[in-house]
Amino acid sequence: MTLRVLTGITTTGTPHLGNYVGAIRPAIAASRLPASDCFFFLADYHALIKCDDPARIERSRLEIAATWLAAGLDAERVTFYRQSDVPEVTELNWLLTCVTAKGQMNRAHAYKASADANEAAGEETDAGISMGLFCYPILMAADILLFNAHKVPVGRDQIQHIEMARDVAQRFNHLFGQGRELFVLPEAVIEEHVATLPGLDGRKMSKSYDNTIPLFEGGARGLKDAIARIVTDSRLPGEPKDPEGNALVAIYEAFGSPEETAAFRADLLAGLGWGEAKQRLFERVERDIAPMRAHYAELMAHPERIEEALQIGARKARVQASQLLATLREAVGLRSLRAVQTAAPAADAAKPQLAVFKQYREADGRFYFKLTAHDGRVLLQSQGFEQGREAGQWVGKLKQSGAAVLAEAPVQLGTGIDAEEVTAALALLAATE
Amino acid sequence: MTLRVLTGITTTGTPHLGNYVGAIRPAIAASRLPASDCFFFLADYHALIKCDDPARIERSRLEIAATWLAAGLDAERVTFYRQSDVPEVTELNWLLTCVTAKGQMNRAHAYKASADANEAAGEETDAGISMGLFCYPILMAADILLFNAHKVPVGRDQIQHIEMARDVAQRFNHLFGQGRELFVLPEAVIEEHVATLPGLDGRKMSKSYDNTIPLFEGGARGLKDAIARIVTDSRLPGEPKDPEGNALVAIYEAFGSPEETAAFRADLLAGLGWGEAKQRLFERVERDIAPMRAHYAELMAHPERIEEALQIGARKARVQASQLLATLREAVGLRSLRAVQTAAPAADAAKPQLAVFKQYREADGRFYFKLTAHDGRVLLQSQGFEQGREAGQWVGKLKQSGAAVLAEAPVQLGTGIDAEEVTAALALLAATE
Repeated sequence: MTLRVLTGITTTGTPHLGNYVGAIRPAIAASRLPASDCFFFLADYHALIKCDDPARIERSRLEIAATWLAAGLDAERVTFYRQSDVPEVTELNWLLTCVTAKGQMNRAHAYKASADANEAAGEETDAGISMGLFCYPILMAADILLFNAHKVPVGRDQIQHIEMARDVAQRFNHLFGQGRELFVLPEAVIEEHVATLPGLDGRKMSKSYDNTIPLFEGGARGLKDAIARIVTDSRLPGEPKDPEGNALVAIYEAFGSPEETAAFRADLLAGLGWGEAKQRLFERVERDIAPMRAHYAELMAHPERIEEALQIGARKARVQASQLLATLREAVGLRSLRAVQTAAPAADAAKPQLAVFKQYREADGRFYFKLTAHDGRVLLQSQGFEQGREAGQWVGKLKQSGAAVLAEAPVQLGTGIDAEEVTAALALLAATE
Repeated sequence: MTLRVLTGITTTGTPHLGNYVGAIRPAIAASRLPASDCFFFLADYHALIKCDDPARIERSRLEIAATWLAAGLDAERVTFYRQSDVPEVTELNWLLTCVTAKGQMNRAHAYKASADANEAAGEETDAGISMGLFCYPILMAADILLFNAHKVPVGRDQIQHIEMARDVAQRFNHLFGQGRELFVLPEAVIEEHVATLPGLDGRKMSKSYDNTIPLFEGGARGLKDAIARIVTDSRLPGEPKDPEGNALVAIYEAFGSPEETAAFRADLLAGLGWGEAKQRLFERVERDIAPMRAHYAELMAHPERIEEALQIGARKARVQASQLLATLREAVGLRSLRAVQTAAPAADAAKPQLAVFKQYREADGRFYFKLTAHDGRVLLQSQGFEQGREAGQWVGKLKQSGAAVLAEAPVQLGTGIDAEEVTAALALLAATE
């Protein structure tokens, strides 16, 4: 059995070397395994939550798509699409919104973190918080459930979102599935061992630390310059250097074979100078990156090729998405009226079987009601009421609660009628109300 | 200038005589005015908020569509569609979600009423409240803004929703319009004088009072039986009867001409018996309803004709909706990558103009940073720091806050550099960050 794996890529930045080693390269390697059926998508609807700069969104979508393709993503094999090219995503988002409890969203980590920070700062709880941030876990559930993904690789901070997607899927299955599993329940695959590269200052490479090494930007020169800026100690050439915890070694290891890395370590211990070590690191990384960079440059010069790949991906995705949506629309009642043609008369035919409450006023000026079977027999007869409203209230209670209020209701059974028939008639009325 | 008027019809019940007089008939009459451009839609996405019974939703959509068409809605003239046939609705719903403040939704009447009721009952504030209920005003804003409706006829309880739609439209125009009005700001048209019919017991005719007179269900017989059950007093034929506040007269008036109604009133004062009065009321109502009922029966027997009318409506609606969505996608940055082709090189060309921060470690073992102009001149030079992190933090602050933190930063101007150039370079960096 093939496993469907789904990965979203947020589109608000430019990928750096750390993203390549930690996310892009392993995802692409996994997509080449025989038993995998991968869906990779540009999460540009999510990007709108954080970013209201259209130029940045546009640029990031282009750069990220080009990067993944240049890094070897096989668009024939993987379903590679932009979230915003699949209108079924937002439709499913609404269907799920209707069955999600607000209390659950109140507890979502991302929202709570912002709300708590506001409160700690003496602000209103929801100051500056958008509905996008608040509703984001539902959109993420739609991303996942739309393709019935089995596995969703995520970091620890995302586990809660997968649990929420499972919850809403279960609730939807329960409400509308009639025994069928409309949605597969997704499982989080925790990425415990994501490779993290050190950045220029030795801390984890991250845009927020401003310590990144570019992946493609700036060409070989940019890569070389960045590597030259990696912070080292002041040991001179000839002095032995400890490879443990050293940023150059850690980055080298992410690209070199075990033998190459062992040789690099040994040479540092033997006194290789930092300048020469950086040159060797650059050469090793460049050996992997250079061919991709050429591909990247070509793609960036021809955005229409990326667009075409994404459109093919969107069509593949929509074949699946539209099939599932059709099933879901049927399940919740958003059906083509053609389909009702046979069902409607059946429902009508069933109707005369229902008993009917009638309210009326007698010559004595008092208000009454009775429950009449479909064949005209009187099942229940009320006493007289001074106010029409009282009669109406009892009818309402009997319709809603059925036999449960029968004992206290001011009514008597019709002639020759047994209580069981009345109980059944009330239950049927309550069910079809 | 034609005014675009938009009206949503919730699809969770079966229309009765009160709906016809109070909503359907006046809306259809208004749609025939020369200057009106009406959009009437079945709000079936909204129905999902309240109703998880698929059969009821299905049946209600069919009955309501058939009723409006039978009552004279001209599907050629009016854009008559189902909300769920226009995928642009949920896409716009997401775009608006991203720019809606959560605080505003906290104050929405429908949500607050449920939350307050929970608190009064000692429950958790959000017990039993779905995200559908909480997010409903955003979907309603999407319904309205998608068609740039000028006027939205609503009851008083809906004014707040129109105000919310205006707010979100203004915010969106401000964020993404670049001076253009992407959305028309809609106006609520308050229906102060909605005709309400009395029901069987003299109270307002309403499904929740269980006092309705059917519109088409049950045929002429059903109408006659219902009218026979209208509560009257016990005056006998020949006794004068006061027409003021009388339910029979009120219903008669909703159908009869002024002359007919005057004659009916005069006859009651002259002693017309209740039985005969009910017969005359039935005949007068039946005169209007009978031709529609025949049309209704024909439509219900041919749901595919209704479906076709709705599909034509959906196509008309989508011509408009998809054009607006294309504009909005462009505005927020969800653009075809083809369009980026010329913009991207331009952005690249501008790039070398940016100054660059570099962090490094000197032979003294301390960490430094400098800001270098695109031509290599050093604009700022930092002091040395014991910790690389300190240097990084200052770089971050300078990038983010620019000249505002320049005075307190442990830096000096490069040789021959004036402060103005540095301020400008920092501002440019912050703008492109």
